[in-house]
Amino acid sequence: MARKPKKPQPIVTLLTDFGTRDAYVGAMKGVLVSQCPQARIIDISHDIPPQDVLAGAVALTSAVPYYPEGTVHVVVVDPGVGTDRSILLCRTAGQTVIAPDNGILSLLMQSQPLEAIHLLRDAEFMRGDVSRTFHGRDIFAPAAASIVNGADIRQFGPRPGTIVTLDIPEAQLRSDGSITGEIIYVDRFGNLVSNISAEFVRDNVPDMTRLEISCAGVEVGPLQGAYANAERGQPLAIVDSMDLLEIAVNCGSAQRALQARVGSPVVVTAGSR
Amino acid sequence: MARKPKKPQPIVTLLTDFGTRDAYVGAMKGVLVSQCPQARIIDISHDIPPQDVLAGAVALTSAVPYYPEGTVHVVVVDPGVGTDRSILLCRTAGQTVIAPDNGILSLLMQSQPLEAIHLLRDAEFMRGDVSRTFHGRDIFAPAAASIVNGADIRQFGPRPGTIVTLDIPEAQLRSDGSITGEIIYVDRFGNLVSNISAEFVRDNVPDMTRLEISCAGVEVGPLQGAYANAERGQPLAIVDSMDLLEIAVNCGSAQRALQARVGSPVVVTAGSR
Amino acid sequence: MARKPKKPQPIVTLLTDFGTRDAYVGAMKGVLVSQCPQARIIDISHDIPPQDVLAGAVALTSAVPYYPEGTVHVVVVDPGVGTDRSILLCRTAGQTVIAPDNGILSLLMQSQPLEAIHLLRDAEFMRGDVSRTFHGRDIFAPAAASIVNGADIRQFGPRPGTIVTLDIPEAQLRSDGSITGEIIYVDRFGNLVSNISAEFVRDNVPDMTRLEISCAGVEVGPLQGAYANAERGQPLAIVDSMDLLEIAVNCGSAQRALQARVGSPVVVTAGSR
Repeated sequence: MARKPKKPQPIVTLLTDFGTRDAYVGAMKGVLVSQCPQARIIDISHDIPPQDVLAGAVALTSAVPYYPEGTVHVVVVDPGVGTDRSILLCRTAGQTVIAPDNGILSLLMQSQPLEAIHLLRDAEFMRGDVSRTFHGRDIFAPAAASIVNGADIRQFGPRPGTIVTLDIPEAQLRSDGSITGEIIYVDRFGNLVSNISAEFVRDNVPDMTRLEISCAGVEVGPLQGAYANAERGQPLAIVDSMDLLEIAVNCGSAQRALQARVGSPVVVTAGSR
Repeated sequence: MARKPKKPQPIVTLLTDFGTRDAYVGAMKGVLVSQCPQARIIDISHDIPPQDVLAGAVALTSAVPYYPEGTVHVVVVDPGVGTDRSILLCRTAGQTVIAPDNGILSLLMQSQPLEAIHLLRDAEFMRGDVSRTFHGRDIFAPAAASIVNGADIRQFGPRPGTIVTLDIPEAQLRSDGSITGEIIYVDRFGNLVSNISAEFVRDNVPDMTRLEISCAGVEVGPLQGAYANAERGQPLAIVDSMDLLEIAVNCGSAQRALQARVGSPVVVTAGSR
Repeated sequence: MARKPKKPQPIVTLLTDFGTRDAYVGAMKGVLVSQCPQARIIDISHDIPPQDVLAGAVALTSAVPYYPEGTVHVVVVDPGVGTDRSILLCRTAGQTVIAPDNGILSLLMQSQPLEAIHLLRDAEFMRGDVSRTFHGRDIFAPAAASIVNGADIRQFGPRPGTIVTLDIPEAQLRSDGSITGEIIYVDRFGNLVSNISAEFVRDNVPDMTRLEISCAGVEVGPLQGAYANAERGQPLAIVDSMDLLEIAVNCGSAQRALQARVGSPVVVTAGSR
């Protein structure tokens, strides 16, 4: 008798601003293991700053591409919990994302097409007694379990009319040939991630090896190939793991050293020397 | 030949104040995967504030009800490690809880009956060389593994005489019809969780829609259906995911805004308007 | 037909300074579950202070001994990412450790022999497009997956010439019979872990019960058997879970109370009374 190849364990990832001090994540996982014991649960992050939808959008975009088909991503950065904000289910690259309709999908949509989007409306997929404050446990987790158990996103509700998108600034090419952008994310190391992609620079500047880059008014020199190419404590520019221009400090925090934050300006010019 | 239905993987949850910076949790998990490789390990929280037994009790109570039968919960918030404080194993709703005898079971016992309690005494279930400072690794984790591997809690030791309980204040109905209580927990968002259950209010106040609620001397208005029903930065009252009255600030921290803490008073009166 | 005993699930542990706020760990896990879906992933810690190689070395040494044969430990505390620093694979006690060549193996090597060390050189084991800043995702995780999938560490590259070791101070026996050492690690509770092993004290001081111990100039008395043997808020000395002399404060932080840090001196003398 031929043996069926073993199907890989379905994966459910969690991305929230719940923190790890309270038992909120623990309760969500309890619902998941109770309703879909075969699923494997992986934490993307629970330390998104409270209600910081843009930070959640960055985290989502930097994780999704590395997961296999069939993965279900549960995203709960949801300041609108309990209001009439919608919850969305969408399909992308064979994976499913469940997220509040608050713009948190904006960056993911820019980097890969969403194949289908549906509203999470049908109460059949929710816990019997939905609380006012904890839809992660009462709506998102049960919906993820239903997807793992074979439900199709079309069963959860109709397609939405429009969905909310974040107004994320785009890098600009100026008439003098310089590129301007801004910081859109600061990571735990204090690294400053800009909205200027390496591709955009490559397409618009003749010589990538002679760039002059500044951030928040501070010159940080040309592109480096490693953090440690700058002196300890000195700022530098580098292409990061999302292929975005990043300002960092070797063994330090660029956020602190440059007094920069989300929104700080970044300027790239073709070096003259 | 009939095929036996596949038994779901047994679950071991961990709830500690060990933090995630050191390798304490990693060592405990090493013991677990070595002694019961078939178990699935789920973190409830490791960021209970150091030695904060009440915060651990709240976390335990808010997670246990969502886990399936057979789950083993390992609770190590244990300022008395190394003293002659006892360790308890108890059965509740088909699950097992292993915890120091320091009152951390107090809230769970209020919400669901403990079917049996035994002392963890028998050294056979411990690591050969028990350290002075890390019973999580040397006693709690091996005990959990033994439970997963089929041991019965009665094998670990006799029933305790009395067990320690926390002196948790209860909400009071005053002669003027108002309800007084206090904050018993503050979560990562700065939400203030009181000891006043929605049920207690419902049973004692005629009209839930016209309450006047104050916390730490600040009026926060009637009950709301969503955090976002208050203006951004403004306080509100809401029934939380444990069915307790909670004071929050929309997109902010009620702890900071109201300068409140565990013990701050909460007053609920039937609104006159 | 004889049934083959079920092989336990291979384990991959992660020990990084990536923090849990960003999706770095989530991306690494995505690579792992995509390339070796059968592996079980366990977090040792992601909250090693940024670039703190010594803290990473302590965490590694305190976790490895508790894991079963076959475990693959992935260690990414790597300030030299992107430079020509090497990456090492080593075998120890039937387990594999993958780590940058920056001294992070120094303590582990003192406590258990490394059976073989090889360089991680062969690009065949890396992601196609290795970033400048995120070798955890692009090199370490794929290498771990390859080990789980059966690769031998000798396939990854040649043996290294020399490897980097940390200059970790050793406890000293003075001519007057006292022992001097220093703090090498501070844990999340503010417990101060010294480089003086209980074994070293036992070998050099006649009576372990009458020691006089000081740290950072503060007398902390003799060895105690439990944190709670000191008054609440008072300092004490105890043998910790790594068998090292530790200075702690009962229900408090010795780091704060003694104003101590990594490098603070510890002195042990044979008590006269």
